Amino acid sequence: MDYRFAGRVEQLQSSVVRDILKLTQGNEIISFAGGLPAEELFPTEAIRQAADRVFESGRSALQYGLTEGYLPLREQLSARMAAKGMQADPGEIILTTGSQQAIDLAARVLTEPGDVVLVENPTYLASLQIFSLAGLRPVPAQSDAEGIDLEDAERIIRQERPKLVYIVPTFGNPTGRVWSEQRRRGLLELCRKYGVLIIEDDPYGEIKFDEKAHFPTIASLEGKTQDSHVIYTSSFSKIAAPALRTGWAVADRRIISMMAKAKQASDLHSSSLDQQTLYQLLRGFDLDAHIRTISDAYGSRMREMQALLLKQAWSGVSWVEPQGGMFLWLELPDGLDAEALLRCSVKKGVAFVPGSPFYAAEPQRNRARLNFTHCGGERMAAGIERLSEALGEFMART
Amino acid sequence: MDYRFAGRVEQLQSSVVRDILKLTQGNEIISFAGGLPAEELFPTEAIRQAADRVFESGRSALQYGLTEGYLPLREQLSARMAAKGMQADPGEIILTTGSQQAIDLAARVLTEPGDVVLVENPTYLASLQIFSLAGLRPVPAQSDAEGIDLEDAERIIRQERPKLVYIVPTFGNPTGRVWSEQRRRGLLELCRKYGVLIIEDDPYGEIKFDEKAHFPTIASLEGKTQDSHVIYTSSFSKIAAPALRTGWAVADRRIISMMAKAKQASDLHSSSLDQQTLYQLLRGFDLDAHIRTISDAYGSRMREMQALLLKQAWSGVSWVEPQGGMFLWLELPDGLDAEALLRCSVKKGVAFVPGSPFYAAEPQRNRARLNFTHCGGERMAAGIERLSEALGEFMART
Repeated sequence: MDYRFAGRVEQLQSSVVRDILKLTQGNEIISFAGGLPAEELFPTEAIRQAADRVFESGRSALQYGLTEGYLPLREQLSARMAAKGMQADPGEIILTTGSQQAIDLAARVLTEPGDVVLVENPTYLASLQIFSLAGLRPVPAQSDAEGIDLEDAERIIRQERPKLVYIVPTFGNPTGRVWSEQRRRGLLELCRKYGVLIIEDDPYGEIKFDEKAHFPTIASLEGKTQDSHVIYTSSFSKIAAPALRTGWAVADRRIISMMAKAKQASDLHSSSLDQQTLYQLLRGFDLDAHIRTISDAYGSRMREMQALLLKQAWSGVSWVEPQGGMFLWLELPDGLDAEALLRCSVKKGVAFVPGSPFYAAEPQRNRARLNFTHCGGERMAAGIERLSEALGEFMART
Repeated sequence: MDYRFAGRVEQLQSSVVRDILKLTQGNEIISFAGGLPAEELFPTEAIRQAADRVFESGRSALQYGLTEGYLPLREQLSARMAAKGMQADPGEIILTTGSQQAIDLAARVLTEPGDVVLVENPTYLASLQIFSLAGLRPVPAQSDAEGIDLEDAERIIRQERPKLVYIVPTFGNPTGRVWSEQRRRGLLELCRKYGVLIIEDDPYGEIKFDEKAHFPTIASLEGKTQDSHVIYTSSFSKIAAPALRTGWAVADRRIISMMAKAKQASDLHSSSLDQQTLYQLLRGFDLDAHIRTISDAYGSRMREMQALLLKQAWSGVSWVEPQGGMFLWLELPDGLDAEALLRCSVKKGVAFVPGSPFYAAEPQRNRARLNFTHCGGERMAAGIERLSEALGEFMART
């Protein structure tokens, strides 16, 4: 039979990251590609005990749940948000299948095909896929080490009238970049002035290498959730475990209620076994101490990877040292095509994500994203050796 | 701030079923409204042991998984499908957050706004919401106790050129109806002739009261998955537990691959803790024996409800005895508005779902859907008593 697919889906590029993840599953490839947390740091025993408490809590634990998500977990999240300067009651929170779904639902309820979304350049590629699936037009603003360029952002807001601004201001994916407070305040001012909503995507914000560093979320600068210009999204995937697939959005209750309507049609609700397990985990386990443990471990791994890279002394390769998150963003020599380098690297047994799919426009082909959280020690050292071989061979050839 | 929502979302009616579910949570209302399985029959201990085996299987159990879903569970499903006459290899199966998401993804990848979907009248209301969110136009064909009227379906296919046909041919929601084999074959022939895809939604098909009864799925009549005219969807929610939120679709691999692309953008993947738990459950637990147990119990409850209804001897109220599934579909006296009756009933402490939201057009206002699986015994008897009071009072008033 001749199947006819929707145009916007035919055009959708499959995520390079996930396609590589698929290729490398069960393979001997050392992968710096996926945004994978370190498995040996998962609080497996605590999660197992939490799940046990769910099963003990009675048979209704396995029944259908609310579309908005398990209320006791939303109550806990409300308290966690408050501790970070964000006031949101449980009715201003929706639980989703990862923060990915929170962004998808926000896009589905707030836009019509053809609408513009203002984004950083580069930005998180799976969000670019959401926008593409929704038929939106992402328009990138210039960005530098401090964050988005406010003048360029204002020019685009005036010219293109975007429906949404999508940003990852703290330890961005792919760049690992942290916005300055001035840029955060500046963007919020702009969005207040022109009445534009911001999706502040913050899956990595708690993974900071310097415990004392403080990067206020834009949602906390807005200072209220009612009538807020910010839809804040985050996830338990990086701070607890990805398999529990639980993210959330915080926004004005009119937005949350519309997202719940769309979610009801999309999947009725996310796994309530996962949500109840997280609720039980948060009751009996010091999640903040655990976040400190993984952040310290990831900081060490980042420094380990940096030392290995410095040892290679590749000419024309540079990066900015990340202050948190999971990624190191390499700038390779001018003219080097990271996708071609990837093909060569995979033959040597190492993978990373080439930079171009992260750009909504004007892709920089000589960028590469390396994940430093998933493997360390000898495996990381061997991976960087293989990458070095590939780079050497590749540069000799071209 | 003035939030502007997408038109198709503003129009979306919140599901009456779920809104009632929300109102009745923690309340003293006896609810025949939700499509809830019986909690006391959940295989809680077996699921708990299965989850334990997942935690024992190693730390990578809590890592990110594949968008298509956990491969060993897809392999088990492939074997289960084969036992029911449907040949599908794991690459022709995608795991989703309930079958609801399978239908949503199929609609997202196969239609453009404005496209027509041919449906039964009445049909599953949460699917009508999916179509509404996708901007589709559902066109209902006449249906009777045997299934869809083939002449009317052909007329609509010729006139409206639908992109999809959506049906629940076995123990439909809300009617509980079972299509005859002749109608199943007839619709498949029509769809072959005109090149139209069928979504065969089958969440209830295994819950049949007569073990020996055989209702072949349309997918099994098609006899192959490659080049098939059928997208078959089902779920573990009714046969294992809803909290595990795992459904699936079986279709030609080109369709599965497009659905995976859309799913990647929507939520990366569904809970892999749930999927792995189901895999472990299927290894160590006789799911078919469990399905027999719940089907027998539900058959008894259906007969129990039927006896209670007969005892009331309401004049002008009729129904067709269901052969499986979870619902009894009441036809109330002419002119009686079931939504008004619901408001009166909720005051008496009993809830059901009024029929009109299940109709894509020409709603029959004097229909009501009663769930007979969630509560039995004294609670069911008290619920029917309250409903009787409401009906008596309501009819005296009007």
